[in-house]
Amino acid sequence: MFEALQTGQKITREAFDQVADSLRSELLELQKRLKDASFPVLILFAGVDGAGKSETATLLNEWLDPHGIFTRAYDKPSEEERLRPRLWRYWRDLPAKGQIGVLLSGWYSHPVLERVYDKGKRKDFEYRLDRIKAMETMLAEDGALILKFWMHLGKKAQKRQLKALEADPLQSWRIGPHAWRNYRHYDDFLEAAEIVIERTEGWMAIDGEDPRHRSLTVLNVLKERLARHLERKPDPKGTRAPASPMPTVLDRLDLSQKLDAGSDSRLWQEARAELAMASREANQRGIPLVLAFEGWDAAGKGGAIRRVTASMDVRHYDVVPIAAPSEEERAHHYLWRFWRHLPRDGRVAIFDRSWYGRVLVERVEGFASTAEWSRAYGEIRDFEEQLHHHGALLAKFWIHISPDEQYRRFKEREETPYKQWKLTE
Amino acid sequence: MFEALQTGQKITREAFDQVADSLRSELLELQKRLKDASFPVLILFAGVDGAGKSETATLLNEWLDPHGIFTRAYDKPSEEERLRPRLWRYWRDLPAKGQIGVLLSGWYSHPVLERVYDKGKRKDFEYRLDRIKAMETMLAEDGALILKFWMHLGKKAQKRQLKALEADPLQSWRIGPHAWRNYRHYDDFLEAAEIVIERTEGWMAIDGEDPRHRSLTVLNVLKERLARHLERKPDPKGTRAPASPMPTVLDRLDLSQKLDAGSDSRLWQEARAELAMASREANQRGIPLVLAFEGWDAAGKGGAIRRVTASMDVRHYDVVPIAAPSEEERAHHYLWRFWRHLPRDGRVAIFDRSWYGRVLVERVEGFASTAEWSRAYGEIRDFEEQLHHHGALLAKFWIHISPDEQYRRFKEREETPYKQWKLTE
Repeated sequence: MFEALQTGQKITREAFDQVADSLRSELLELQKRLKDASFPVLILFAGVDGAGKSETATLLNEWLDPHGIFTRAYDKPSEEERLRPRLWRYWRDLPAKGQIGVLLSGWYSHPVLERVYDKGKRKDFEYRLDRIKAMETMLAEDGALILKFWMHLGKKAQKRQLKALEADPLQSWRIGPHAWRNYRHYDDFLEAAEIVIERTEGWMAIDGEDPRHRSLTVLNVLKERLARHLERKPDPKGTRAPASPMPTVLDRLDLSQKLDAGSDSRLWQEARAELAMASREANQRGIPLVLAFEGWDAAGKGGAIRRVTASMDVRHYDVVPIAAPSEEERAHHYLWRFWRHLPRDGRVAIFDRSWYGRVLVERVEGFASTAEWSRAYGEIRDFEEQLHHHGALLAKFWIHISPDEQYRRFKEREETPYKQWKLTE
Repeated sequence: MFEALQTGQKITREAFDQVADSLRSELLELQKRLKDASFPVLILFAGVDGAGKSETATLLNEWLDPHGIFTRAYDKPSEEERLRPRLWRYWRDLPAKGQIGVLLSGWYSHPVLERVYDKGKRKDFEYRLDRIKAMETMLAEDGALILKFWMHLGKKAQKRQLKALEADPLQSWRIGPHAWRNYRHYDDFLEAAEIVIERTEGWMAIDGEDPRHRSLTVLNVLKERLARHLERKPDPKGTRAPASPMPTVLDRLDLSQKLDAGSDSRLWQEARAELAMASREANQRGIPLVLAFEGWDAAGKGGAIRRVTASMDVRHYDVVPIAAPSEEERAHHYLWRFWRHLPRDGRVAIFDRSWYGRVLVERVEGFASTAEWSRAYGEIRDFEEQLHHHGALLAKFWIHISPDEQYRRFKEREETPYKQWKLTE
């Protein structure tokens, strides 16, 4: 890819100034339209030190309305970040619909550094890139505009650039302690870059030598892609899915099973003591637990969750009730709110309803389009795969009752004063 | 306080069952009304191990609608928490309006443990209690209902309780490793408790010996206080404050000072290099920086901020633009959104407009009532005092221009295409 890149192009200050004002006005106009649009914009800068990643990000921030754009740059993961799946910190920071998020040393940086310096295995590197590609696909299918710029310099050009900055006492602070170290590994970075570009999608290589040329290229790409994206037609809304007449695994479930044992019985107390001991050990060994409860209204999800939490140290778990999404949650990919609530190592997150809502209530009620709920099965598999890979224990419970039993319980709720609040239209 | 507490009262299972259902219905009814009310409820449990703190919290969660109540319990501060002012983690978790937050080992726990085990100085202990009292006052004045239960057991009763639990193999898991250690320091805890109760406000002491008696007492207090709080009249809305004719410090400012130096000049480059070096050192030494920019529209806050950030490593700072509050922010105390964005040690938070909005735009436009903006001066002092105490560098800039200059700049914006977005009605 880089061999084919035309390098050495320059733009004079006069030529730049001639187009700058009108380009800026156009970008601001597009940003204004973006505010009411239903998608976010993600701009990723990766590439070589000295090729203008942070300078271009700074220019973007200077030119655009600061209330609609933010920049994040990532260092080594902090404790909170290390104790969760790798992509957690990027999910946390994703821009909402109508916003532009600029990422420096974003999700590609850490895998590349690991590959270059810790001699990370090619297989692990590719595994991480595949997860990243899956995330980008997911966001793009949800409507996001993702622009990925690889800022490039040839080996000699990088050396020249670093020397020039270093020689100037007023500029030398720009050279971080890692710049020369990275330069000495130029060829390793190049190898890693080629793998990244081949294995993931949508990269644009930018010649980073001339500041005005690289800025203008990036800004023009942003302008054209954003204008085109704003013209797209939204997906058709979903329609209520027809009921399937096929027998399911639930039909074969024996619903006549009973257990006669009150909550003070020895059976319960033993089970509770065992769970208490096991969950304390999981906490000490740093194993995160993710429990998801799904099932019919009145099936007893809440009761089951209370039996579980009664055996756990209240400092270790969070119960996350999933109701209709908030304004902020609606402005993100539907998986965003589940990523936000992932437990750190040693802690427990109990989801009272879960990400499966996408293929249950949202599918049935037509809140998600057919395309949306269809691709959700794969997205969920990928999400859970990352939990597993990180070392989490994931347990998913479907609590089932028959329609007759559900009707009986609704009636009972109607008649019991302290249960009436549970029964809505 | 504890000598006066009537102990040894018991309630039979029959008596409890007789009132339970109707009490539960009443609490659910109140919780329903709370959802549309404009205040949150905070329930704090503190006191002796074995006196039923977590059992009572569990009962509350069982009885009420889980979508409107959550429980948090605090362990030793995590890395993220240690790197910020002490009250940061509690601010982060505060319930929104309409919600009930139950806190176990809440903000009193850490100071008490430090006092008992690390022989914390009385002066430091009292300093922390004073900060806590200031926070509680602030929240209460903002409308919050705060209920504080001190669950008490005499020394002999605690020993009996711990022995009974320990002897039962099905209950012994309830005794954490610290219970007996805490018991041996019973008298030290009692001394600390007396200081807490004397120096802060609103504690109710509960005899923790009989589970049904203590539950009923707590639930009845909650019922009565919540019912009363729901009847309160809201504060009258603010009116626009009249302009003050007094000369201010701003009138005496010499607005004719000029600096003729473009952004490429040596002067600028030197200043930028110096700031770059200093901010890198602050990062390495773990000093957090909080910068607040205030001033007239078109005074140049944005430009000043960009000059600052151009000298800093983008991984180290966040610019926090403060516009009209979001739905979530409006549902909390006005300082909540600033607490959320406090930088961790070594990082920089740059506020483009700040908490001073409470006594500027909100005062002038009448968004805050007279009582609200009047007490904000003290609240802001307390907030900044905590930043200072934690070791943060706080710098506040007021960027001033004359009304004529402001008018001139508005006109200029009107005529410059890429500046028009900045000019609103």
